[in-house]
This record gives sequence, C-alpha cells and structure tokens, in this order.
Amino acid sequence: MSKKNKIRRPKARLPKGMKDGEASEIRAMNAMLEKIRTVYELYGFEPLETPAFEYSDALGKFLPDQDRPNVGVFSFEDEDKQWLSLRYDMTAPLARYVALNYDRLPKPYRRYAAGSVWRNEKPGPGRFRQFTQFDADTVGTPVGASDAEMCMLMADVMEAVGIKRGDYVIRVNNRKILDGVMEANGLADDENAAKRLTVLRAIDKFDRLGLDGVVELLGQGRRDESGDITPGANLTDRQINSIVNFTGWGEAHSSSQSNFGYDEVTFANFEESVGTTEIGLEGIADLKTIASLCRSANYGEDRIQIDPSVVRGLEYYTGPVFEAEVTFDVKNDKGQVVQFGSVGGGGRYDGLVARFKGIEIPATGFSIGVSRLYTALQALDQLDDQTRGPVLVLVMDKERTADMQAMTFELRNAGIRTEMYVGGSGMRAQMKYADKRAAPCVIIQGSDEFAAGEVTIKDLVKGSEMSKEITDNKEWREGRPAQFAVKRDELIEAVLSVLKRHEA
Amino acid sequence: MSKKNKIRRPKARLPKGMKDGEASEIRAMNAMLEKIRTVYELYGFEPLETPAFEYSDALGKFLPDQDRPNVGVFSFEDEDKQWLSLRYDMTAPLARYVALNYDRLPKPYRRYAAGSVWRNEKPGPGRFRQFTQFDADTVGTPVGASDAEMCMLMADVMEAVGIKRGDYVIRVNNRKILDGVMEANGLADDENAAKRLTVLRAIDKFDRLGLDGVVELLGQGRRDESGDITPGANLTDRQINSIVNFTGWGEAHSSSQSNFGYDEVTFANFEESVGTTEIGLEGIADLKTIASLCRSANYGEDRIQIDPSVVRGLEYYTGPVFEAEVTFDVKNDKGQVVQFGSVGGGGRYDGLVARFKGIEIPATGFSIGVSRLYTALQALDQLDDQTRGPVLVLVMDKERTADMQAMTFELRNAGIRTEMYVGGSGMRAQMKYADKRAAPCVIIQGSDEFAAGEVTIKDLVKGSEMSKEITDNKEWREGRPAQFAVKRDELIEAVLSVLKRHEA
Repeated sequence: MSKKNKIRRPKARLPKGMKDGEASEIRAMNAMLEKIRTVYELYGFEPLETPAFEYSDALGKFLPDQDRPNVGVFSFEDEDKQWLSLRYDMTAPLARYVALNYDRLPKPYRRYAAGSVWRNEKPGPGRFRQFTQFDADTVGTPVGASDAEMCMLMADVMEAVGIKRGDYVIRVNNRKILDGVMEANGLADDENAAKRLTVLRAIDKFDRLGLDGVVELLGQGRRDESGDITPGANLTDRQINSIVNFTGWGEAHSSSQSNFGYDEVTFANFEESVGTTEIGLEGIADLKTIASLCRSANYGEDRIQIDPSVVRGLEYYTGPVFEAEVTFDVKNDKGQVVQFGSVGGGGRYDGLVARFKGIEIPATGFSIGVSRLYTALQALDQLDDQTRGPVLVLVMDKERTADMQAMTFELRNAGIRTEMYVGGSGMRAQMKYADKRAAPCVIIQGSDEFAAGEVTIKDLVKGSEMSKEITDNKEWREGRPAQFAVKRDELIEAVLSVLKRHEA
Repeated sequence: MSKKNKIRRPKARLPKGMKDGEASEIRAMNAMLEKIRTVYELYGFEPLETPAFEYSDALGKFLPDQDRPNVGVFSFEDEDKQWLSLRYDMTAPLARYVALNYDRLPKPYRRYAAGSVWRNEKPGPGRFRQFTQFDADTVGTPVGASDAEMCMLMADVMEAVGIKRGDYVIRVNNRKILDGVMEANGLADDENAAKRLTVLRAIDKFDRLGLDGVVELLGQGRRDESGDITPGANLTDRQINSIVNFTGWGEAHSSSQSNFGYDEVTFANFEESVGTTEIGLEGIADLKTIASLCRSANYGEDRIQIDPSVVRGLEYYTGPVFEAEVTFDVKNDKGQVVQFGSVGGGGRYDGLVARFKGIEIPATGFSIGVSRLYTALQALDQLDDQTRGPVLVLVMDKERTADMQAMTFELRNAGIRTEMYVGGSGMRAQMKYADKRAAPCVIIQGSDEFAAGEVTIKDLVKGSEMSKEITDNKEWREGRPAQFAVKRDELIEAVLSVLKRHEA
C-alpha cells in the first residue's frame, strides 16, 4: 500500500462543458419527457434507440480519408483503425438505421427517439457539450401531410408540456422558396454559392439585428458594437429590396417578431418574390398544402405561422423547415427583456438516407432541444419538480435496528416511500439528515416509547410551516414542532394521515 | 452535385459490438426499468445522472502518465490534451461526484442511476460494447444495516420484475473472510499477491469447473479440453484442503449450486477456516450482522444466502460482496441445461472515494446488469412487451386528406393512439402498412361511405384470428375479415368498443 500513496491523487472534477443532473431536475425532466412521449405515441410514432456512437463516415460530416475527424464531434479510433464518433444529433443515426433495415421497415417508417448527443464545441453559460434531443421523424414519404403533421405535433407537444396557446408559435418556411428568390435575383449559379449562404445567414439574424442590420449584411457589410466588420453579400439595391419585400419585414410592425402571418398576403408576397422560378413555385405549392391542412384541422395562425424568416442552419434540409418558438418575454443575461426563442426545429431532408442507399428516400422530422424547453418551462414555472423525500425511521438504539427495520418494511409494504437511517451518527445528525432529504416526517421509538408500545411521529412539514409563522404557538415556543405518539399498531394509519394532510 | 457523386458512398453498418433497440424491446425494457426504479424510490434512493464520459484519471483504471489509456475503455484526447473516457460502470462516476460535492450532500448519500456504460472489449454473442446498468448505492456509512439493506433491496427487485421466490437467490460473502483464510494459510504477505489472485479466480470458477477443476487450479494447474494449460496457485495439500473446507464444496450436494446455505454451519466453518486472524473474524462479524438483519426481516435462505464461493471480480471491494443469481434452468448455446446465473452484483467499497479525497468514505452498492436481467425475464416469459399499434386512418382519395385528418384528431382527442396514413401509396400498400404496424383496426371512408355519411371500420385483430381458425366462416371465405360500417358521428364509440373487445 505504501507504493500507492506516492501516486498523485486525481482531482475530482467534471469534464469541461459537462454537468451532473440531480434529483429534482431529473424528476422534472422525466415528467416533461413523459408528456412529450405520450404525444408522440398518440400520433403513432414508435420508439427507436441507436448506439451512442457510429462510424464517423456514417455521420456524414467527414470525408473518409480525413486523418483525424474531430471538428465538432468527439471521435476516437477503434483497434481496427476505424474512426468512431459520438452522435451529434439523432437524425444521422436514423438515416444509418433506415439504410441498414430499409427492406423490413414499414413504409413510411415513423419513429421517435430521445437521447444524449455530444458536441465538441466551446461550452458557455447554458451551453453544454452533452445534451438531450427528443425527435420524431417520418421516413419514406414525400407527402405534404407528413410535414403538416409535424407542425401540428409540435404545437400539441408545446401545450402538453404546459405552454399555453399564445405563448408559443410553430413557424414554417420552405427552403425551395428561398432558392426561388435567389434564382429570381440571379443568384442561382455555382459562383454565387457563398453569396447565397451569406444571404441565408443575414435573414437568420433578423431577430437579433432587426431590419437595418439585415439590410447592411445584404449590402456592404456591418460594423458591430466592438468595431468588428462582418462582410456583406454585396447585393444590388434591387436585389436587397426584393429580399426585404419577400420577408415582409418592410411592413410596419410592433415587435421584433414578424407578424406577417396572414397566409394570403404572405403567399401573394412569395409569388411576387420567386417570379416564375420552378423551384420557388414548387415551394409555395408545398407550403400551401401544409397551411391548408393545418387550417382545416383548426390549427390557426395563433399556433402555426408561415414565416419567411425561418432558415434553419443545417444544410441537409431540402423543403419545408419548421421552428418551435416560445414567444413570452424573459430577461437575458444583461437584464434586457427579450423573447425566449427557439426550443426546437426541423424540416424535410430528402437526401440524407440517399448518402447510403443511392436512391432518394424522402423524410421529414422535428427535434426538440430538451434543455431549452426545460429552461422555458422553468421560466413559466411549469416544471413538475415537487419531490417528496422518504419517511425516515430513526435509529435511537443500534441494538434495536432490527425492530426499526421491521417498521420500515411495514411502511414500504403500505406503499409509503420510507428509509431507515443507515448512517452511524446520533439523533442530531439524523434530524439534520431528515431535513436535507426533505423527509415529510420521522418515526422515533426510544426506550420509553418502546416500553409503552408506542411510536412518535414528528411531522416535519408542519414543523417548518410553524417556524415560518412566528406566533405564540405553544409547541413552537417549546421547540417541539408538531409531534405526537401513536400505538405501535396504528403507525401506518397515522403516517398515511400525515402524508394526506401534506398533500392537501 | 456532379462532384459529390464521385465521393465513395459510406456503408450503412452498426459499429462493432453495438446494437439498435427497436420498439417492442424498448417498451419491455422501459417497463422493467420502471419496476426497478419504483423499488429504489420506495427504499428512499434519489436519482443521479452523470455525463457519459469522465477524465480518464478519474475513472481510476490508469496511471496518469500512461500515454494512451485505452485498455478496456473507449478514450479520446480533448483539445487541451487531456484524456477523456466513456464510463465503464456507474460506480467510478459516483465516486467522482461524491468527492466533488461531499460537503453539501446528505450523509449517508443514497442514489440510484440507470445508464449506458461502454466497454472496449471483444464483443461476442450476447456481449455488447454498450449496455445498461441500474445501480443503487449508499455512500458515507460503514454500518452493516446498509449492506443488509442492499441484499433485501435486490431480493425485492427480483420479485418486482417478475422472478418468483425460489427462482432467484441473493448470495452474500465477505472479502475479509477470504483475506482471513489466505492469512491463516500463510498467504497474506506481499510476495503471495499473485498467488492470492489465482486462488480467488479458482474459487470464482467453481460453478463452471466443479470441485475437481478448482482443486487442480489451486494446485499444479489445469489442462482444459483444448489442451491449453492454466497455471495453478501451487498450494500445498494442507492449504488446498483448508480452502476446500472453507467453501463447503467438499460436502455432498446435488447441483452445481452450493447448497451450503445454513447460517450456523456456514459460520462455524468460516470460524475454523480463518483461525485467529483479525480480518477474518471481523469479516465473520460483519456477515453475521447482515444475516441477522435479513433473517429478522423475514428474508430467509430461500432469498438471501451466505455463500463462500462469491468472490466478485472487481478489485475495489473491501468487505461484503453480493451476487443476484437467477437459479432456474435454461439451455445454453450447446443445448445443455445450465443455471441462468448472475444478473447483478455489488459489495462494499470503502476505498473508492478516498482516491480523490484522501479520507476514507465507506460505501456499499449494487448494480443490475440490465440486459442479463432482461434475458432472464425473456426466458421466463415475464416481459411486458405487448404493443398495440395505432389505429390507422386510410387515405382513399388524396383530395379528402383534410377530412381524414379531422377523423384522426377526433380519435386522438378521445385518447386513442391513431395515425393517418401519410405515405403516397394506394389501398393495397396501406393495408400492408397497417399489418406491419400491428394496427388494431383501420378506418376507411371511400366515396360511397362519404356519400352515405358513414365510415367503415376493419377489425384487423378479429380478422387475423379468424384466418387462424380456418372455419367455414362466411366473412372469411369472402376474403373480408370483420368489417362494418357506422355513422360518421358514431366513429369514436365504435372504435373504442373494438379496442375494448381486443383487450378482453
């Protein structure tokens, strides 16, 4: 053993960007996930679980000859020299799974999946390197009804977890319309690829920068507060006007949120913006199908809005794109009132499975950013995180441990969450422990009580309530918050009635 | 796009030793985990979730100066040159968590944790590189009641998931007694460390090799069927006799399972074997405490047995060790009848947190091998895996999709798991889809039914049952399994009654 003592002691620390989840958060999180799961199940989706890591080439971010595929993901080399990567989303593993099992799967294949994903990125406040996504996807159909269903599903999920109608909106756009607008502005060819990306990024920043900022980014570029210059897309005034007209942001509106949600006006605007481009017109037709199905199912613009500013970063989207936004105001780090923003998104990705199969398998899906949604519910005070600690049976005399254990088992058999104190300390430490565990009450049987065939129940919730109202309550002044003795064989009944009183 | 086509297409394949979990398995697994969770909660344990990976030095398998810590675990280097490893169990992360948060935790700290663990080992049939463990641990107490509780907890878990009393046993031993036996046989000193390990390994192989095999391994060594020789511990006959006597295997018994479970006889035997060694006597006292607490709580030898053959591989155990064994017979790969064996284990590990803190923090815990337990329940036909697919609303006429969707929403609002077919295919494919999804019934409204204000319900369960009993049933002969029309506004009621009939 003397040799071992010379070894440097490791420091107990969390890996960078990681966190531990503790009891009340886990309980609230699981309650939330369960509500989401119930909606996904109700819609007929089936669960799927894929492994935490995949072959790096299957995740689709890398060329197979790259030496060390580690940008953005956590990767490691297997003993057979093949690279593996922890999944960074649930969609790439789904594409791999569908490609591998295509023939035997029902078509369309509808699955949901909740799980951890990992990003090898710089962590920050509220930005972790491991987090949970909860996705629903329909693979194998190009039909607009499957996209419309995603929007309605997400609206139902928002309400199921406790976000009131009016406090969220599902915003919908179509990548094809954006492509059409680009084409109508002469930006469709290969040499304008970088310019197109700059335009998409500019549109995506409307919420943060407002119309003026976007116009700068579409033009010569923009100087931010720090003096740094972001290069612009260098569009002509005519092009800039066309894009601003497309977004509808030129109209007067009262908040940073586009209120340009009236289908007819929006669609008329879209038609003007895409001109005669085939892809643009196709995108408008797709979007009209989605809007019409949502409207006929009574999902109005209070829940699902057509919104030209939705872009979505991921490059694999090929048609409709969706974003679930929580619209109530919160204060940001600087104390400014801002809208909470996105808690999830998705869209149609017809090319992802084709990477493996060579044939195109159309797919559409939605991913909930579970931590974001959790934070939103926290802000709304809608988390289901009340936890009742166990009833604690104290051990006053170690020789009588077996008797205390018998009581503990009796209580558990009655369905009451109970534990016997299994530490080695005395009365004072045991009461402190009961407090830390939020025990609703403790059970005490000292020698006097034992002799009298009784047990004492100390009601801790009642006790702590009394200590709040500093009144002339007699018990309180005597330092003995609510406690009473019952006959040993009335223990269960008495504890049940204490717990019932707490619930009321 | 033409450039992209030149890129080699990745093959869709699962990483070596990995598996996908599909719907019925996930459902059955979650039902099983929920039963375990309920017992852990009832006992007063609280949930904890730690990240998937930890700093490699915190996992405790490696010296910090090792260049590439990858034996047995999956490791990768962070951008700051620190090594990270995917957790290979839930205990090492718990030790890190406790060391990091010690001051603010209740003492003892009692937590449960379910999660994936990863082993960089050669996979085989039923042996995967990612699997689930479900642990309960009590940290911060040396008291025997906390060990006894682990044994009773595991017995309760076995019964909660559906393993009948008599079909499992929790076997208990104490490392200190083994140490005492070694010491009594003159094997306690440093130069016999390798010999001690060989002895422990030999004892651990009793179930597989029987008494003769173990005796060979304690002596000169053993030649197996393939002719390979495993070196032995080279003990003297006196030493071998002493160890065989300790195990009790010298007694006649009928099965490969030690039936030497009668506390008094076992303890008398233990006392003879450890002689006057302090550590041995301490181990016996510990074990007597556990046995007495279990017995007084009516956990008899039909559930919890003292068994000298329990060794447990992990080196960090310092006192009592436990093993949960399923004792019913199953057939192995070769068709031989064998006992199912271990589904979990644990023990006391008083040194694990000390690695970080410098001070010893006693702890005890139990880990369930979730896949093993799942396989055991499968063998017992005790899995809760019945799944009902969604009611399927067919789309006969795409122009009327909105009407079909309205029906779908009505059914969902009534709490009925329902989906509208969102694929692009015709009637035949839709019925095939309903079959694959195990839909209990499909809803059809063609133009005739629409004109008549009716919908047709096709009862698929009734249909497939009928197709089993090939009778002269008129409907069956006509190729039209149970279907009937109802008025549109009676849809919900009719579907509910179909589902109710299926349940009955």
